[in-house]
Amino acid sequence: MSDDIAVMMAEIGAAARAAAGQLAVASDDQKRTALNAAADAVEAAQGTILAANAEDLAFGRAKGLSDAMLDRLVLNPDRIGAIAQGLRDVAGQADPVGQVIAAWDRPAGLHVERVRTPIGVIGVIYESRPNVTADAGALCLKSGNAVILRGGSESFHSSRAIHACMVEGLRAAGLPETAVQLVPTRDRAAVSEMLGMTAHIDVIIPRGGKGLVGLVQEQARVPVFAHLEGICHVYVDAHADPAKARSVVLNAKTRRTGICGAAECLLLHDAIADTLGAQIIADLIAAGVEVRAGAGLTQLPGVVAAKPEDFGREFLDMVIAVARVPDVQGAMDHIARHGSGHTESILTEDAATAATFLSQVGSAIVMHNASTQFADGAEFGMGAEIGIATGRLHARGPIGAEQLTSFNYRVRGDGTIRA
Amino acid sequence: MSDDIAVMMAEIGAAARAAAGQLAVASDDQKRTALNAAADAVEAAQGTILAANAEDLAFGRAKGLSDAMLDRLVLNPDRIGAIAQGLRDVAGQADPVGQVIAAWDRPAGLHVERVRTPIGVIGVIYESRPNVTADAGALCLKSGNAVILRGGSESFHSSRAIHACMVEGLRAAGLPETAVQLVPTRDRAAVSEMLGMTAHIDVIIPRGGKGLVGLVQEQARVPVFAHLEGICHVYVDAHADPAKARSVVLNAKTRRTGICGAAECLLLHDAIADTLGAQIIADLIAAGVEVRAGAGLTQLPGVVAAKPEDFGREFLDMVIAVARVPDVQGAMDHIARHGSGHTESILTEDAATAATFLSQVGSAIVMHNASTQFADGAEFGMGAEIGIATGRLHARGPIGAEQLTSFNYRVRGDGTIRA
Repeated sequence: MSDDIAVMMAEIGAAARAAAGQLAVASDDQKRTALNAAADAVEAAQGTILAANAEDLAFGRAKGLSDAMLDRLVLNPDRIGAIAQGLRDVAGQADPVGQVIAAWDRPAGLHVERVRTPIGVIGVIYESRPNVTADAGALCLKSGNAVILRGGSESFHSSRAIHACMVEGLRAAGLPETAVQLVPTRDRAAVSEMLGMTAHIDVIIPRGGKGLVGLVQEQARVPVFAHLEGICHVYVDAHADPAKARSVVLNAKTRRTGICGAAECLLLHDAIADTLGAQIIADLIAAGVEVRAGAGLTQLPGVVAAKPEDFGREFLDMVIAVARVPDVQGAMDHIARHGSGHTESILTEDAATAATFLSQVGSAIVMHNASTQFADGAEFGMGAEIGIATGRLHARGPIGAEQLTSFNYRVRGDGTIRA
Repeated sequence: MSDDIAVMMAEIGAAARAAAGQLAVASDDQKRTALNAAADAVEAAQGTILAANAEDLAFGRAKGLSDAMLDRLVLNPDRIGAIAQGLRDVAGQADPVGQVIAAWDRPAGLHVERVRTPIGVIGVIYESRPNVTADAGALCLKSGNAVILRGGSESFHSSRAIHACMVEGLRAAGLPETAVQLVPTRDRAAVSEMLGMTAHIDVIIPRGGKGLVGLVQEQARVPVFAHLEGICHVYVDAHADPAKARSVVLNAKTRRTGICGAAECLLLHDAIADTLGAQIIADLIAAGVEVRAGAGLTQLPGVVAAKPEDFGREFLDMVIAVARVPDVQGAMDHIARHGSGHTESILTEDAATAATFLSQVGSAIVMHNASTQFADGAEFGMGAEIGIATGRLHARGPIGAEQLTSFNYRVRGDGTIRA
């Protein structure tokens, strides 16, 4: 069985590599046509997609999926409309391929250009969100990359129905149908194969929980764009504006607790911990948040004492850890020890302290007087995002179409030789 | 023994990681001071360096190194002067760290900046060129990265003497001495350790022959910036200017045959193969080049018949393979099959054909009417280079200080919360 999977995946990989060559030279017109036609197909196939989704939901309920998992899995006319709209939004974005990033002349008589090119073949491994089939497929297509999609077994039928619409779009634009492939099996051996397909896949993007991402990061021989956890910190400085601080901390923790940009740890400067800090903690408790307080804060009403493992923990829930720090350096030390390199924010009116924090905290996203909930490709103005990366190479922060490109140098001379 | 090496390398790695944190916030002044002081130290230590080099040369001769290897290894006052000058050149370059790559505003009231940051810790594994100790150390330092250098066993003493000068420079600038570390053993187990140090090394750059680079690419768990081979092609189109074509092909092959940008394969459009093509081949033969001719060219005087394995082969010598192709598409097909993704050049006066070649050949560097020998960081205006990469992720083409950086997002609001 596993041998069959290996053979099948090698065929899928070779087809993707061949399609990538054609996609790299596809015009923006063709890519837009494909995406808009795919959006039309999604709308036209609403009934088919809902029927497929019903199969998945029955399977998921029988398997005992949590309510949160089932909620991610479920499709309805609104969500299908959003999928179609997402495809049209990506279609309308500027084509990153061919953009000249830099250009300069050299004394020998050369004109050098650095030009955006596709990466090649992207592998996307995701869990039970069927919409990723369309979102990821669209961003890879827009950036001229072929994509191999491996959806969660729970969303198998829904993903297949959506994928069929993507293929219809490709066909309408005269692009190879193998530009967007969906692995047609629930067998997990397909995932292991993908992780080792260095000849056929240039980068893998896992979308899902810590278990999936950790497995991919540990076992992949192919480069990975991902974040394992979003352990986001908000530091309230001695010179924070109280109204802004209260509003931002509440938003950073409670707007949505299940996203990677949700704050998981609050750091309070010693000088305001018992005043503004106590007020912020009271706000959080009033909003229904469980506050796990560290040393020097456990006397505050309504808190529970934090355990050591509560720092550097991604709760993804109405829970927050709070630590008292001596100053901005103490905050940065805490973040260096417990952070995950995702997003951190400083709240202060002191420009010098803000500058220190912004230039010295090494996370993918650092913020000043803003909620960590903004850590999102759409909020950054990148259109859709295929994920957020905390690695330091190539892509970092929200990954949109532009981040899915590479570049090359195009050099023009006039019979120019090197001395 | 190998356990001891593991312990030692872990200590070196931890020290590099700690130094990276300090280097990331070092001012350009400090980095310039360190590099200029290192240059002074190299000049002052000329006698010590030459004595160390004499030890290496004796060891190398006893080991039976080739003349080419010995030539790379040998130092003299001129070469030592060039090493010092190289350090001063890098010192004078613009500091890439902190440069704002892009900046924009968002409707919610956020100002987003994308800012260059160091990558962290770079590992450099090289063979018998002692000058790499200074060049690589300088570029990593300028870009705010800590570096772990592992020089070839043949250049052990020379590298150690040069490294001591780098440390003197760091000391003069008040920067951590562990910012530039040289692995103090010839034991190859140190290389294996480096390839797996994912927690302490962010990227590895191998500098050397195909054997070294292949081993690193195959075994590394750490990301690698490298090129395995430079199998560069020059395509002479039907509409090539004869004078330019003759001059560029001769330069591309013969200026220096041992560098990765040297042409290894000439592609001749069918329409000019027997005229301009024959003339170019006669030029090459007159210059002492062995011409291995493919189908339809073996009748030309002085050529030898190419074997199939001569296409896609890096000769690094006065040898070139020549193939006859039907048109630019045939040339691109040949390159796709046999190229190494390094550098290819088209010689033509037809702008449309040139545009096709430049946009459709996927190599790191593509050229029009220019010699492939320009594939070099200094020629591109990047100052020194630490290597050339053919991978599609992060760094591509010549790798200078800017290519050794990552970036993060710095977001400024005013108590801004997400709706």
